[in-house]
Amino acid sequence: MPVTFEDIKTAHKRIKSFIHNTPVLTSRYFDQLCGAEIFFKCENFQKVGAFKIRGAANAVFSLKDEELRNGVITHSSGNHGAALAQAAMWRNAKCYVITPRQAPKIKIKALQTYGAELTFSEATLASRQEECDKVIAKTGAVFIHPYDNDAVISGQGTAALELIDEVRLLDYLFVPVGGGGLTSGSAITLKHMLPKAKAIACEPELADDACQSFKTGRLHPPKPPVTIADGLRTALSDRTFSYIRQYVDDVVTVSDEEIISAMRKVWERMKIIIEPSSATPLAVVLKMKKELAGKRVGIIFSGGNIDLEKLPW
Amino acid sequence: MPVTFEDIKTAHKRIKSFIHNTPVLTSRYFDQLCGAEIFFKCENFQKVGAFKIRGAANAVFSLKDEELRNGVITHSSGNHGAALAQAAMWRNAKCYVITPRQAPKIKIKALQTYGAELTFSEATLASRQEECDKVIAKTGAVFIHPYDNDAVISGQGTAALELIDEVRLLDYLFVPVGGGGLTSGSAITLKHMLPKAKAIACEPELADDACQSFKTGRLHPPKPPVTIADGLRTALSDRTFSYIRQYVDDVVTVSDEEIISAMRKVWERMKIIIEPSSATPLAVVLKMKKELAGKRVGIIFSGGNIDLEKLPW
Repeated sequence: MPVTFEDIKTAHKRIKSFIHNTPVLTSRYFDQLCGAEIFFKCENFQKVGAFKIRGAANAVFSLKDEELRNGVITHSSGNHGAALAQAAMWRNAKCYVITPRQAPKIKIKALQTYGAELTFSEATLASRQEECDKVIAKTGAVFIHPYDNDAVISGQGTAALELIDEVRLLDYLFVPVGGGGLTSGSAITLKHMLPKAKAIACEPELADDACQSFKTGRLHPPKPPVTIADGLRTALSDRTFSYIRQYVDDVVTVSDEEIISAMRKVWERMKIIIEPSSATPLAVVLKMKKELAGKRVGIIFSGGNIDLEKLPW
Repeated sequence: MPVTFEDIKTAHKRIKSFIHNTPVLTSRYFDQLCGAEIFFKCENFQKVGAFKIRGAANAVFSLKDEELRNGVITHSSGNHGAALAQAAMWRNAKCYVITPRQAPKIKIKALQTYGAELTFSEATLASRQEECDKVIAKTGAVFIHPYDNDAVISGQGTAALELIDEVRLLDYLFVPVGGGGLTSGSAITLKHMLPKAKAIACEPELADDACQSFKTGRLHPPKPPVTIADGLRTALSDRTFSYIRQYVDDVVTVSDEEIISAMRKVWERMKIIIEPSSATPLAVVLKMKKELAGKRVGIIFSGGNIDLEKLPW
């Protein structure tokens, strides 16, 4: 049964007392720059610093006690890993994370802060899978994929739900697309609550597999992981591709330079910290501003986790 | 007539439709770190990016039309200059700013954005005064000092007013002290609204003239401008020193290392951008945490204007 808006409402009831109903900010500067009314849903202020806690919490809270007895496991060492560990901690369950030996120390430290039990793998997909299978065989932990999972997708759809609940009318919603979990959930919510509004998935040119897949109707593999928007380097799964084909109006790409410029403008003008993935939809909005004149535009700022030692300017 | 709480309430009525009632944020991380309840009044989200718009707007809006006919002038090329220019623009008045030829381009650009008419001086106080006198003689503009001015002080006191209106009870209020305008206004407000609460002025060790003045009862001159908290390099005036002696409970200093560490923690944990001056009171709170256990603590984050090219890490 594919995810419906009812699933997203149920997810919201399930997780809302654990997560933040993050603020929706506006900025006269960006409104004037675009000639539109822009509403920024600030998931950079979310628990663990990213929307990922929504999907992870919904997945973990959907499990029965006996299903959760042996803990949960994932192979994302980024925001999903931290989010899953936090959600597991709320239920006093274990969380195993497979992480490449070469992962940045800052990420490993974050995972440990949330109580994850780490297993190191080599950087290859094969090694990651092998280590993951071993831990599952040993522990019986339940695997929670970062996006190829309907409970996760339902959870991610709750950010758009809160945004639309608050601002009511939107003509457009722009979300970043990596694996497609946030995009799928957001688009399902948007098309149910505001059927006439357009859902635009936003992607770095350097990781334009979703755009290629959307335009050709055939799932494309991931590109080499070079874009600065490190949260958007992954490719869609069959599941998220199917939701995106059904609910998303367009996939638009921007260059890394446009992403960095948009991110810097947000830091300077709004005085808030967003990561490059978050700046991607804003960069698309700035590029499309002619089309957006006079419109009400929602943007999901997906997260704010960035290494302050390695800023791109 | 020295500034009273009535003046601050009047100032708030005068300026409130022009400024932001900035949000009061909380952070579980910092609460746990200090064992206290901390309320951050976020003037980094204020118009022009700092509390300075409060004092500047109150000073400009206090002038009669005929007084304002020839415009206003100041010699601060930082946040006060930008704030004065913005306030003057709201009343369609001219604003002249004397700025050292060597001022950072980013500041000059900001002043121009707000429509200031710039006159360049050498870096000395004598040259600055000479140029200022010349412009006043030529134009008849009204001089608005960045802090040695009761209308400015009354305006600065409105940030604490909004904070206490929102959170009601506080045991302590920590504010950064440079020239003493924000400190004076905040302490007058605090001692009127919450007479038992303590007002603590927070200063970099490298610019500890206010601390020295407070402890010796004799006004000390400014230190060489070396602290990273560039908004706090100025010294008190007789006027602000007198308010501080009357209303402030203590002046506490911290090292630049403590300021940078506090600032970084805010960026990483709260995902908001504050400038070093703003981090100074938080650094003091972190240092005094034993004394603050279980208390309700207010902190004014004074601003968020920082050159992203020159971060201290």
